[in-house]
Amino acid sequence: MNTRNRPGRHVSPQPGANRPSYGLGTPARTLQARPQQPVFAARDLVPSQKSAPNPACATDPARPCRHPLSNELENRRLLAHEQAVKGRFAAIIPALKHLAAQQHEADFLERAQRVARADLGFELPSGILEDAWIANLDMRTLYGACVMHTIRLIAEQTQAVPQNSDEVTSFLLDCGYHAVDITPCSDGRLKGLVRYILRLPDDAVRSRKAYAGAMFDVEANVKRWIETELMRYREGQPVTADAGTRYLKIVVYHWSSSDPAHEGCAAHHSNERDAAEAGLGRLREFRQAIENSFCCGASVDTLLIGIDTDTDGIKVHVPDADGEMSLYRWVSNLTLYKETVNDDASGARLKVYQAIQAASATNGWGKGNGEPHEGMRRLIATLLINNLSQIEYVCGNWGGRYPDIGHNERFISLGDGFEEFQVRNLAYFVYSHTVEEGGPDLDVGLQIFSKLNVLHGLPVPVAIHFRYDRRVPGSRERTVERCQRVKAAIEARYAELHRQGLLVCGMTVQDKPSGSPIEPVEANGASALRSAR
Amino acid sequence: MNTRNRPGRHVSPQPGANRPSYGLGTPARTLQARPQQPVFAARDLVPSQKSAPNPACATDPARPCRHPLSNELENRRLLAHEQAVKGRFAAIIPALKHLAAQQHEADFLERAQRVARADLGFELPSGILEDAWIANLDMRTLYGACVMHTIRLIAEQTQAVPQNSDEVTSFLLDCGYHAVDITPCSDGRLKGLVRYILRLPDDAVRSRKAYAGAMFDVEANVKRWIETELMRYREGQPVTADAGTRYLKIVVYHWSSSDPAHEGCAAHHSNERDAAEAGLGRLREFRQAIENSFCCGASVDTLLIGIDTDTDGIKVHVPDADGEMSLYRWVSNLTLYKETVNDDASGARLKVYQAIQAASATNGWGKGNGEPHEGMRRLIATLLINNLSQIEYVCGNWGGRYPDIGHNERFISLGDGFEEFQVRNLAYFVYSHTVEEGGPDLDVGLQIFSKLNVLHGLPVPVAIHFRYDRRVPGSRERTVERCQRVKAAIEARYAELHRQGLLVCGMTVQDKPSGSPIEPVEANGASALRSAR
Repeated sequence: MNTRNRPGRHVSPQPGANRPSYGLGTPARTLQARPQQPVFAARDLVPSQKSAPNPACATDPARPCRHPLSNELENRRLLAHEQAVKGRFAAIIPALKHLAAQQHEADFLERAQRVARADLGFELPSGILEDAWIANLDMRTLYGACVMHTIRLIAEQTQAVPQNSDEVTSFLLDCGYHAVDITPCSDGRLKGLVRYILRLPDDAVRSRKAYAGAMFDVEANVKRWIETELMRYREGQPVTADAGTRYLKIVVYHWSSSDPAHEGCAAHHSNERDAAEAGLGRLREFRQAIENSFCCGASVDTLLIGIDTDTDGIKVHVPDADGEMSLYRWVSNLTLYKETVNDDASGARLKVYQAIQAASATNGWGKGNGEPHEGMRRLIATLLINNLSQIEYVCGNWGGRYPDIGHNERFISLGDGFEEFQVRNLAYFVYSHTVEEGGPDLDVGLQIFSKLNVLHGLPVPVAIHFRYDRRVPGSRERTVERCQRVKAAIEARYAELHRQGLLVCGMTVQDKPSGSPIEPVEANGASALRSAR
Repeated sequence: MNTRNRPGRHVSPQPGANRPSYGLGTPARTLQARPQQPVFAARDLVPSQKSAPNPACATDPARPCRHPLSNELENRRLLAHEQAVKGRFAAIIPALKHLAAQQHEADFLERAQRVARADLGFELPSGILEDAWIANLDMRTLYGACVMHTIRLIAEQTQAVPQNSDEVTSFLLDCGYHAVDITPCSDGRLKGLVRYILRLPDDAVRSRKAYAGAMFDVEANVKRWIETELMRYREGQPVTADAGTRYLKIVVYHWSSSDPAHEGCAAHHSNERDAAEAGLGRLREFRQAIENSFCCGASVDTLLIGIDTDTDGIKVHVPDADGEMSLYRWVSNLTLYKETVNDDASGARLKVYQAIQAASATNGWGKGNGEPHEGMRRLIATLLINNLSQIEYVCGNWGGRYPDIGHNERFISLGDGFEEFQVRNLAYFVYSHTVEEGGPDLDVGLQIFSKLNVLHGLPVPVAIHFRYDRRVPGSRERTVERCQRVKAAIEARYAELHRQGLLVCGMTVQDKPSGSPIEPVEANGASALRSAR
């Protein structure tokens, strides 16, 4: 087991028997508990083992958390993946420090490449190393190159593992949804949303474009809805239009329970209520846009979810029978975890459904018009149960609260984003096709990195990544041009940082089908399918 | 009649009996000639009556052009409209010169507003007039304000005339097309394309977004195709999906027959062949994108049209039975005009069909696989016959060749464009939602205006105009923000011009339905429905 966090060993989660089961039958079958594991076996991988009591940890600090509905095996796999990915990035600075000490040695070039191959898994750009004797080693450029190379290396290793998402797609269809579209905040602490926090396979989700404060583009989302609809009508994908299924739009906002006034959502000034209210408003606008613009009863279902980024516990705002939500009608999964951790599996499952029922019965401010339809109830129950594993993941590995409750991203991801990266605090992700439109969101990212990197003299790494469509002639060439246009716009927007070498942009493109290789684009426009090693 | 070019009198073309008839029956009925008018009665409106022989004029210079298939009444209406629109702009400089001479008079403010009301049809911003005593009158700002006000005034007067396009929509459906999407070049000399050169009602055309060199965005066009398809499938608009109709994409390139090396398409270095080849290439990419991306035999029809901007004569590249076109297989309508001007209506109509047939039978370089389908033949014949009227319009009014064969635009139109403006050389139009993407196209426009305006000390007027959708909550607010973002990006891109007051941006938004009022947006974000008077 302890070989897992050695660089170069691939430890991404694998499809396997112990994944959550998304059955098509009754809730009881759908939510079947995993075989119990007697002890938490991944302790040897835990980065900072806390034995002191932690207020965010639900259970007795003297014994490890063990919830009857959590997926122990998946938790270990996910931990190994997170460790491997973060380990790769963590290796960069020690390796560069090592090189810095040796830069005036006679055989520096050979030494440096030896260190790089061993510690980072790739070779460094030899031009920078060769010029080290003239002045000092250009550490900023070298750091930028290492971050970009590491991104590609991880992506290459991750994409080799195809995910089997048919089961989840069937489950979602069974709940009445032919497409699930999630908008999280750009904040890096939500980067593990789909794979970790909600425990869904990536390709079961139609879209997960991120915006600062989760303030998604309603018009662009209407276009995405149109595309999804046409596939149902024209090609019967994933089901025909007469199947009675719906498009589900989810918005995810966040807050910090340990430091609510400072470590919440920057776009909403760390005000949880404002973040939730803005997300709810945007969801209503989207639904209204569809209902007003299309005839024949066109509509969508919407769902608002909040996340405490310190514990990864979710709060689900339960819609009423009309699909309406309230800021005051929700289920807190952290509470649910505490209430069910000592139950047996079927007792815990029952309490999950009862909690949804109780939320629907809320009176006063949050009062709604009854319970949501059965498919929505099953979906919410499944998300809550999936998230119980994640709460336990944080309890078991970090004593119930992440050590890095604030920003700790490694790079800024701009463009279409990497589907391969689903790890908390790895990247601040801005979905945008132009800096002109995405600029304000990007500014937030630059502010974060001015503290994380610039303050220490390290550049801000911006990974520009766009998808093209090989089926569309000229699409790849135009996408490469878009990369270059966006890079130029970023360098113009942050001209002073760029001039000082404190801004490093990398560019990559990728074909549309999931798992396509990531192709680096050179600054001069050349691009090629290259091995990262 | 001679009241028509007096400012303030609205003379936009009206729907009426003498418009082209787009019948649903046989070609003979479809292309029925108009009742003949004995003489050309609009001579009193002609701006520069040429009596000297002109090589571009097909007929004997001693007698007026009179083609049996041309629509005399429509030509008179269109001339009056063009005169009225251009007259409004032409009045600006004389009025401002008049003011310049009086700016130090005691009662200047009252005098100035009297002149403005009488000559321009609106009042000037009083702040600028009041400050005239301090230094001189700020002519650049005043000029910019007059251009922006004139645009809104014309739009207001034009939009009051709804066009009856049902007949043409039926005709197009009968030819097998549920949507016609035209991409012209941004060049202002093509600004009259739909209403004048092709004689189609505006709202029979799905889209007429302009790009420099007609190099349209394939990906955006695929999205537009998707939207159109969904309306057929979901709502049966304009016909249901099983009706067997198609989407028709037309690209329009251009050249100058009088000065081919200098006054052709700037984006293709005035090379007609390059312009045609690039347009054809983009059409093939679009068709391929649809065929590759969607199953079940998805495809589109495409058509390439060239325009000689000196004479407005079109050249139609006739597709073969497979929909393929060639640079060497076409019908020149100027030739057809000369060959049929002395025939009777039915003889001329026959020759139009024979010309299409002859083009299809081309051997050698342009050889294709037989004739296009019957609907395409009828459509091409109709476009050719419609354009005969336009050739005669240019012959009758300008001796067969426009006096302004080069650029003579009055402003740059950026954004979604004004549907109200369909007059040659009125505006250089760049369809774009960001300056980051539309920048290179906009640069071409700025180059044009650096000669037209800046050289004389006048600012470049840029009218930023975007459509919103009232049915989508928040759409108007976001569209206003887009206006302001684009304005800021333009002012940053051309910072030196802006600093010198040589760049004036106006902003307007408009609801999506055709004929909605144009709403000015103030620089500070305020916007209101205002009367232009």
